[in-house]
Amino acid sequence: MATLMEEEVFMAFTTYATIVLLKMLLMAPMTAYFRFNRGAFANEEDVALKPAEERKKLFRTHPDVERVRRCHMNDLENIVPFVLIGLLYALTGPELSTALLHFRFFTACRIFHSIAYVGALPQPCRALSWMLGLLVTFSMAYRVLGKVLVL
Amino acid sequence: MATLMEEEVFMAFTTYATIVLLKMLLMAPMTAYFRFNRGAFANEEDVALKPAEERKKLFRTHPDVERVRRCHMNDLENIVPFVLIGLLYALTGPELSTALLHFRFFTACRIFHSIAYVGALPQPCRALSWMLGLLVTFSMAYRVLGKVLVL
Amino acid sequence: MATLMEEEVFMAFTTYATIVLLKMLLMAPMTAYFRFNRGAFANEEDVALKPAEERKKLFRTHPDVERVRRCHMNDLENIVPFVLIGLLYALTGPELSTALLHFRFFTACRIFHSIAYVGALPQPCRALSWMLGLLVTFSMAYRVLGKVLVL
Repeated sequence: MATLMEEEVFMAFTTYATIVLLKMLLMAPMTAYFRFNRGAFANEEDVALKPAEERKKLFRTHPDVERVRRCHMNDLENIVPFVLIGLLYALTGPELSTALLHFRFFTACRIFHSIAYVGALPQPCRALSWMLGLLVTFSMAYRVLGKVLVL
Repeated sequence: MATLMEEEVFMAFTTYATIVLLKMLLMAPMTAYFRFNRGAFANEEDVALKPAEERKKLFRTHPDVERVRRCHMNDLENIVPFVLIGLLYALTGPELSTALLHFRFFTACRIFHSIAYVGALPQPCRALSWMLGLLVTFSMAYRVLGKVLVL
Repeated sequence: MATLMEEEVFMAFTTYATIVLLKMLLMAPMTAYFRFNRGAFANEEDVALKPAEERKKLFRTHPDVERVRRCHMNDLENIVPFVLIGLLYALTGPELSTALLHFRFFTACRIFHSIAYVGALPQPCRALSWMLGLLVTFSMAYRVLGKVLVL
């Protein structure tokens, strides 16, 4: 195993990065579930086996499907930068307790964000969990640029 | 060169990650090609040089352009997590043959997925190649969390 | 700190990767700003506190919001692959001056791209900055595959 994987901070990063990426990946099957359940498809070949009169009805957008897709998109916009900046952050050798605080808090924010988004919880549930997650990423970026700055 | 690049598993990861990322990047020029070929633009400044009566006609969405864009989006949702989880997976020191199996199979799945999507091949071509690619990523994530778990 | 962070090329990569990722992350608050400023929301819960007759008006898309979102999407499509391929590129041990040239030029391209997109500057401002950024990523990928190829 690479020596990186012997450092505890990097192992913690690996754990939480994998968890949030898995969470993000699960949005795709959830979209598929809502597409079948609500009967709303985006591609002609997806409804090719249905009778002709039904096909047009199934070839549409549905608010619930669009909601899950927006949630997925928001994950892409926030989780991917978290993992990338988090990787660099873990390599700057922060203290384990500080790093764990960042990783755990971000993971909690994003799981709550998905629940708030898909469940349409009243605001500011979703806005707050999104913003707090963003602040964690900014905090890590601040540490990275403070430690390593070669312009 | 960093010592990481002397490990064969990491070199294999580097090769396949670069290939699938290049494949993903090529979706953007393909979108541009379809935008010009089908005459469907999303921004006013893109059609500013055309005569006024033509402009409105060109400022629209076209099913073929939207199809390529959905394919690109699907790549972002699947290839980026593959590369990120794959990086962590390569660092856990799997056997070269197992790692190569994962990387090769995923790359084949995604290339076939794009052909199936843009070519509108009958289902379940696209669904199957998407799901198999997802399973590869899940398999790597399973190995990562099994080897490294610091919660 | 990991030994990786003692290599100057990797430190330069870390700096520029963090900068472009921060730039990308800032597109989300900008979208939020335009949503509030133009009064165009995508979720029912976002307008729940408004009087009923106003709600329907606010529940719409607005060209300016869509423009910022397309710019954000373009960042995701280009900056994420740059960071991932750039990471692998930095690990192949390129010369510092060559690496800096790649990183600086890409960063300049993407910052100009965002200005050109959000400001709706006349073409080919946006197209050119997008293409030049893409070429930087291709150039790094070419170096990576030239140095490390395990198929």
